[in-house]
Amino acid sequence: MFAEEYDVIVVGGGHAGAEAAAAAGNMGSKTLLVTMNLQTIGQMSCNPAMGGIAKGQIVREIDALGGMSGIITDKSAIQFKMLNKSKGPAMWSPRAQSDRMRFAEEWRLALENIPNVDFYQEMISGLLVENGKAVGVKSSLGIDIRSKSVILTNGTFLNGLIHIGEKQFGGGRAGEKAATGITEQLLGLGFESGRMKTGTPPRVDGRSLDYSVMIPQPGDAVPEKFSYLKTPVLTTQRDCYMTHTSELVHDVLREGFDRSPMFNGRIKSVGPRYCPSIEDKINRFADKNSHQIFVEPEGWDTVEVYVNGFSTSLPEDVQFKALRSVVGFEKVKFFRPGYAIEYDYFPPTQLKHTLETKLVENLYFAGQINGTTGYEEAASQGLMAGINAHLKIKEKEEFILQRDEAYIGVLIDDLITKGTEEPYRMFTSRAEYRTLLRQDNADLRLTPKGFEIGLAKKERLIRMEEKELKSDSFVNFFRETSVKPEEINPILDSVNSALVKQSDKMFKVFSRPKVTMDHMLQLETVSGFVEENDLDREVLEQTEIQVKYSGYIAKEKNNADKLLRLENVKIPANFDYSKLKSLSYEAREKLNSIQPVTIAQAARVSGVNPSDISVLLVYLGR
Amino acid sequence: MFAEEYDVIVVGGGHAGAEAAAAAGNMGSKTLLVTMNLQTIGQMSCNPAMGGIAKGQIVREIDALGGMSGIITDKSAIQFKMLNKSKGPAMWSPRAQSDRMRFAEEWRLALENIPNVDFYQEMISGLLVENGKAVGVKSSLGIDIRSKSVILTNGTFLNGLIHIGEKQFGGGRAGEKAATGITEQLLGLGFESGRMKTGTPPRVDGRSLDYSVMIPQPGDAVPEKFSYLKTPVLTTQRDCYMTHTSELVHDVLREGFDRSPMFNGRIKSVGPRYCPSIEDKINRFADKNSHQIFVEPEGWDTVEVYVNGFSTSLPEDVQFKALRSVVGFEKVKFFRPGYAIEYDYFPPTQLKHTLETKLVENLYFAGQINGTTGYEEAASQGLMAGINAHLKIKEKEEFILQRDEAYIGVLIDDLITKGTEEPYRMFTSRAEYRTLLRQDNADLRLTPKGFEIGLAKKERLIRMEEKELKSDSFVNFFRETSVKPEEINPILDSVNSALVKQSDKMFKVFSRPKVTMDHMLQLETVSGFVEENDLDREVLEQTEIQVKYSGYIAKEKNNADKLLRLENVKIPANFDYSKLKSLSYEAREKLNSIQPVTIAQAARVSGVNPSDISVLLVYLGR
Repeated sequence: MFAEEYDVIVVGGGHAGAEAAAAAGNMGSKTLLVTMNLQTIGQMSCNPAMGGIAKGQIVREIDALGGMSGIITDKSAIQFKMLNKSKGPAMWSPRAQSDRMRFAEEWRLALENIPNVDFYQEMISGLLVENGKAVGVKSSLGIDIRSKSVILTNGTFLNGLIHIGEKQFGGGRAGEKAATGITEQLLGLGFESGRMKTGTPPRVDGRSLDYSVMIPQPGDAVPEKFSYLKTPVLTTQRDCYMTHTSELVHDVLREGFDRSPMFNGRIKSVGPRYCPSIEDKINRFADKNSHQIFVEPEGWDTVEVYVNGFSTSLPEDVQFKALRSVVGFEKVKFFRPGYAIEYDYFPPTQLKHTLETKLVENLYFAGQINGTTGYEEAASQGLMAGINAHLKIKEKEEFILQRDEAYIGVLIDDLITKGTEEPYRMFTSRAEYRTLLRQDNADLRLTPKGFEIGLAKKERLIRMEEKELKSDSFVNFFRETSVKPEEINPILDSVNSALVKQSDKMFKVFSRPKVTMDHMLQLETVSGFVEENDLDREVLEQTEIQVKYSGYIAKEKNNADKLLRLENVKIPANFDYSKLKSLSYEAREKLNSIQPVTIAQAARVSGVNPSDISVLLVYLGR
Repeated sequence: MFAEEYDVIVVGGGHAGAEAAAAAGNMGSKTLLVTMNLQTIGQMSCNPAMGGIAKGQIVREIDALGGMSGIITDKSAIQFKMLNKSKGPAMWSPRAQSDRMRFAEEWRLALENIPNVDFYQEMISGLLVENGKAVGVKSSLGIDIRSKSVILTNGTFLNGLIHIGEKQFGGGRAGEKAATGITEQLLGLGFESGRMKTGTPPRVDGRSLDYSVMIPQPGDAVPEKFSYLKTPVLTTQRDCYMTHTSELVHDVLREGFDRSPMFNGRIKSVGPRYCPSIEDKINRFADKNSHQIFVEPEGWDTVEVYVNGFSTSLPEDVQFKALRSVVGFEKVKFFRPGYAIEYDYFPPTQLKHTLETKLVENLYFAGQINGTTGYEEAASQGLMAGINAHLKIKEKEEFILQRDEAYIGVLIDDLITKGTEEPYRMFTSRAEYRTLLRQDNADLRLTPKGFEIGLAKKERLIRMEEKELKSDSFVNFFRETSVKPEEINPILDSVNSALVKQSDKMFKVFSRPKVTMDHMLQLETVSGFVEENDLDREVLEQTEIQVKYSGYIAKEKNNADKLLRLENVKIPANFDYSKLKSLSYEAREKLNSIQPVTIAQAARVSGVNPSDISVLLVYLGR
């Protein structure tokens, strides 16, 4: 039935699967996306939002490399916010609310627009494996589809089990079937699997809420966007709202604890620490008598509303009674109850940096199957798996991002080196070099790489090079141009900064904390340069960051370069650590299992001590 | 959890459920729509089109009464055609291709816009029945939701069983779960159920087709639309294409017959006679060496294509190989295979004209659960069930359409009087008075009734009254105005019609077969009248039909009126036919079971002969 062999088969059409198929297809691989339901490609299973702290940076990185998530988000956004704008630029994090239906529709159409991507709707129940290599998939109807590589992005569907109160039933999402067969086969092939848990809050009828007693959470007055390409900027936005729980709400919830699958042992697996259920929050933080709830519209027109912060698997009647006790929710009507779901994952230490499995060649995992949580984490893994599947087929060098190059690099290195025993989500604190990994410079960091591997289009590269050229020349302008006291002192005076007594380089005064680009633009020479060189908002922002944070950036680059030396000390493949008896027993065991590629990676393996690293360096002749 | 009691609970969100909820909600009943998946409200499960012969008339009737299907179709249409335009106006049948995703989205938003309609996502596994009355539903999570009435519109979900080749598995549609519990409970309550079957063709990738060897099927040059209200008219349209099967294709299909669930006995239930599978067609019409296939786009932008005429439950590989033998499909790629589905239905003789069940008060059935096939048939039943559920709660008179008033009347009367042993679809030939039941006059026939019961809005009535007033006055103008030979003879000459020798009433020459409104408009007095009275296209069309078909219309009205006398002879409720020994045994049995309301209905019951009717008339004192 599938006469031709595909280059890449992607199983699953969520954030990971969609990015994987798009990447492989756009780079030139004949790609097949197989999903249980073609109508749910690009479905936002949980909250209708993309980005946020550290996650927004990931979306920008995906976009810079030539992935689609940023473009799709821009096309379906109903609100945009740059979080942490009051902090340093390393913390700035873009976040958008999306129209859930439009988001999925845009993904579907974007994928259909890639000539190399084919589609097929069926449940995949197994892999075709020959000589230790993945060579295709097997459908539940018994059809074999052959390919050079397979990317699994099964999300929460592998043996998915939904919990609401005392009830439990199979399902990959509410109202959708679970997928079976793949886990069982992988176990037979020698993989280890585990169970994880996640949850989602009730969806409610916005017409039943009293917004007048909640606090509006509008988008930015001047909204930005995710993609570095020309995508639409929002001209109108929808507000979110904030309300909060109370002791009363907590009391109602506590009444249902004995019927909670979280507390009576029915759910055994671990959920996302930083996205806990409401019952978990009031249990763990018993002293807090209130938690925030964000009321997020599900789209431009729909009245359906997402109750962010109220994820729960308590019985429906308890969910309902408790939510009716929340300010503004006194008359709430439910669309769908919240629930918890348990699913299979495969500890990601079984993967290489390319997301290829160590056990089965040409088999890649991306997304929740690797124990991560979050759309952005999933999408970025899908992208990297798609890229690497393509590169390997074309016998090109693998594409790995280092920890100082991208959050994506941090994410994957963390996963495969340290593994994870609870759903892994990205934070800025996970990155050693977060001053380098900013949302404003993802294009400068990654677009040349994306272009080199054949994913980012020429247009991207040109836009990025123009931005770089212009901001470099603007920075140089500040370095080289002097300003006289009579010109700059009125500005310095206005911000209570010490006045200067003689002419100085603009760079120096601009570096002062209270002096902003807006101030500098008051100088005729500066505004003249901007006009003459036709500099846009992005260039001004980039220049400002380069000037004001040059010290920090240089220092972190220096640190990164030092560590890079260790990253460059390669360890031979299939290195047998058991022969190095001077290593601790734990180090030998862990290192044999993880098989780090470099000394630096070895140092990040949990249980490996600096003394073990010294032993290794000596052995390797350093 | 659901503290308040609803007036109406609608189970299911397809065409029947959506119309039922909209009608009850718009009329003022507190309505709850419960569905297994809120994302699939208004889903077009099979072909992406509304209307067609007799079905288009039904959509116009739904619209005239104040239902939503016409509006939704207009908003999501990608092509419009008036079928049978070369025949008399009784045969004119509007049909539109829809954008499948937009159709569902528009339904969802339309329902959300009705303040009285609430939503809830869960599987309903049973009814609450007290003292022989439906008083709510029970969810699969065990929640009771109470209401004054319940409308079941479960489509193909009740114990749905999907067949593809030798494989079979539970499901309500491909990729969706079946619903269980309701049938079993209804059987316990004394209902009879049966099994029916339907099927759907493969969906394929439009990018893999060679349209250059197919015949384009464009929409009308001047497209009309469904709704009598102001809805958008298409300014651009998408083409469909036609191709055909061949002996080669049939040979390939025949090779799979031994693996077909249709022929090896696995599927026992009966499918829609006029929508047969391709294997059924080549089996039943063995002498035909070609069947038409219509290639229908699934939307404005998507590449997904519906292969109309190729419904099949043969094994996937046979479907694929056969379709690859079709002209233009040589390189076809599948999105989803075709399949057959068996599901429970309840013989509709168990219903009253209001679609309320005879056994359980306040319980209504609409759509495929009644053994019908087709979106339009389902939608119209949903509408009528919603209307009648509301009216009964408000203690108002029931709303029943007669056979000379609407196709909807024919449909329901056929169902409850004759029952059906195969999926029932509407045809013009089922209507005795099809000259009366035209698509152009559904508003004139039904909008006053829709307004009277409180469903159609004032705006509809005003638009309809204006149309009626203007066309009546225009018809009168033709009746009263004379035309001179020198004015009309050039026109008559141009169409080879006999010239007139003296002045005559315009009505008379206009009545001639070859003379059209366009001809009449060449007369200055006529075009002057049109301009002066600001008559639009609809009025011109209505006038032309009234003039040219006045004879037929009058004759059929006369026939209808005669028969209406029998319709007016009421039979007492719960009449015991067994005491009338002069009736044939079969008549006694059937009449006791059907319990017709009038003598005319009794005459339509299969097995009841004219002699039985005479006996009844004598007994009732006529």
